[in-house]
Amino acid sequence: MSAEPSRFTPRDPDFETRGRASYARQTFMSTLGAELGRVEPGEVEIVMPVAPHICQQHGFVHAGAISAIVDTACGFAAMTLMAKGAGVLTTEFKINLMSPGRGERLIAVGRVIRPGAKLMVTLGECFAEAGGERKLIAMMTATMMVMDTLGIVD
Amino acid sequence: MSAEPSRFTPRDPDFETRGRASYARQTFMSTLGAELGRVEPGEVEIVMPVAPHICQQHGFVHAGAISAIVDTACGFAAMTLMAKGAGVLTTEFKINLMSPGRGERLIAVGRVIRPGAKLMVTLGECFAEAGGERKLIAMMTATMMVMDTLGIVD
Amino acid sequence: MSAEPSRFTPRDPDFETRGRASYARQTFMSTLGAELGRVEPGEVEIVMPVAPHICQQHGFVHAGAISAIVDTACGFAAMTLMAKGAGVLTTEFKINLMSPGRGERLIAVGRVIRPGAKLMVTLGECFAEAGGERKLIAMMTATMMVMDTLGIVD
Amino acid sequence: MSAEPSRFTPRDPDFETRGRASYARQTFMSTLGAELGRVEPGEVEIVMPVAPHICQQHGFVHAGAISAIVDTACGFAAMTLMAKGAGVLTTEFKINLMSPGRGERLIAVGRVIRPGAKLMVTLGECFAEAGGERKLIAMMTATMMVMDTLGIVD
Repeated sequence: MSAEPSRFTPRDPDFETRGRASYARQTFMSTLGAELGRVEPGEVEIVMPVAPHICQQHGFVHAGAISAIVDTACGFAAMTLMAKGAGVLTTEFKINLMSPGRGERLIAVGRVIRPGAKLMVTLGECFAEAGGERKLIAMMTATMMVMDTLGIVD
Repeated sequence: MSAEPSRFTPRDPDFETRGRASYARQTFMSTLGAELGRVEPGEVEIVMPVAPHICQQHGFVHAGAISAIVDTACGFAAMTLMAKGAGVLTTEFKINLMSPGRGERLIAVGRVIRPGAKLMVTLGECFAEAGGERKLIAMMTATMMVMDTLGIVD
Repeated sequence: MSAEPSRFTPRDPDFETRGRASYARQTFMSTLGAELGRVEPGEVEIVMPVAPHICQQHGFVHAGAISAIVDTACGFAAMTLMAKGAGVLTTEFKINLMSPGRGERLIAVGRVIRPGAKLMVTLGECFAEAGGERKLIAMMTATMMVMDTLGIVD
Repeated sequence: MSAEPSRFTPRDPDFETRGRASYARQTFMSTLGAELGRVEPGEVEIVMPVAPHICQQHGFVHAGAISAIVDTACGFAAMTLMAKGAGVLTTEFKINLMSPGRGERLIAVGRVIRPGAKLMVTLGECFAEAGGERKLIAMMTATMMVMDTLGIVD
């Protein structure tokens, strides 16, 4: 849906190191088999191989697993633009599931659309990759809250 | 949010047996450690113990895992009202996350609000249970599509 | 969807007077022909007669007009629970349109589900009334932000 | 958010004439003062001057009026890709409101992301224009249903 280059300047130059360290503590992503790909200011990619343990009754990737990686990509995209010490929390998201989750792997891309001081609005997409081709299978909009309470900061 | 008794008459009297058999094929639910609870006409409950493998970086249950059980509860609630041989597919859902997912276990409840012939609109809730108390932590609205193509029927 | 009595205690005992005064400044509601009905702590009703100037090309009430009254009912429901001097702003909403908007009048009911200090989560419903019967035609979830900046307070 | 040229081939070469005729029957759009702008395959623009009769209590354009033009732009974008005689109905939409609706005029742009046979998924944006500058103030995702029942076709 997009072709613009990244146009955000991160407040914390160590945003990538910080993001990768935080991601490593996401046990659920490791349960899914999902790995962090590109981490750029305001844009993050997560890659998840299609595997039996994340499927539903028809053999496709479960909508919940798709949502999980797109939500996470959106959350980490928001985190790249936050100050050091701030944490991120999803307050809501909506996802449209357009095609079954199948193929070799799913790629979730999250992007910040509006980087507010308290709330960030993000747009996420999920692509299914098979035989070198990518197909858009889901689209998400999500609101991320900036948490500055030190207690729950990652 | 609700106190009305179930007021739907299922088309298939074997809706519960069929639902439980279909749920047993949801490998992702077993990955999450989520179990099917009550199955009534138009209303289904799923129970998921809080455990480290479904958490995010702050130690709370990942929004994606919460979404997965609420979406599944909504989908199976829709399935209880479908004819034998019909399958269900989530076309979209939106979730508002109101409090962190913590405690002993999460309980997702999905209910059919509008049982259309092609699309069913559902309302889902997620409660966190700790020390015998239940707290509403998330609310979802979801659209389920009735699939009558035999090919992908469960 | 609900049968519980109102269980919120308003911070401002003059919540109803304040709400009605604010509603009176909503020129868009008057453009729609929508009137404020019940105003209770955490729950507000808006009534809109079906009329040609709010319809779409098929002669039904436009989804945008339906959304407008449900969003407003949700926003004013949130406002009843806010401190004096606070304003309310919708940050997001999602609506499922289940049946055409027709009949004699539409009744929107907004209720606060989670009254957070900064964000309030609400659930809205829209009923079409005809011949003394009410039918649920739309369901909304919406997030309302509490604005304490005096500048834009109503 | 996008820079791709339109890449859809309409089934009905008269899609624009048909769309403009249908828009002319949308009395609600005329109540809002909203006019149909560009009509391309899979993409439609609607322009609404900011005016007092569409505002809320703080003097900004009401979220419901913003939603109405973005939903309509999405619906008409879907209609451009439908066969002659088919009608369009919004089944659900979600909107994130990112900045107040003010300035000289609002421009809604709706685009088809996934043109399914029964359901079309669309992405909408709303820009506020002032002094020759455009600012993105809202983002929507919406599902449009293709209606082939002749009875309610426009």
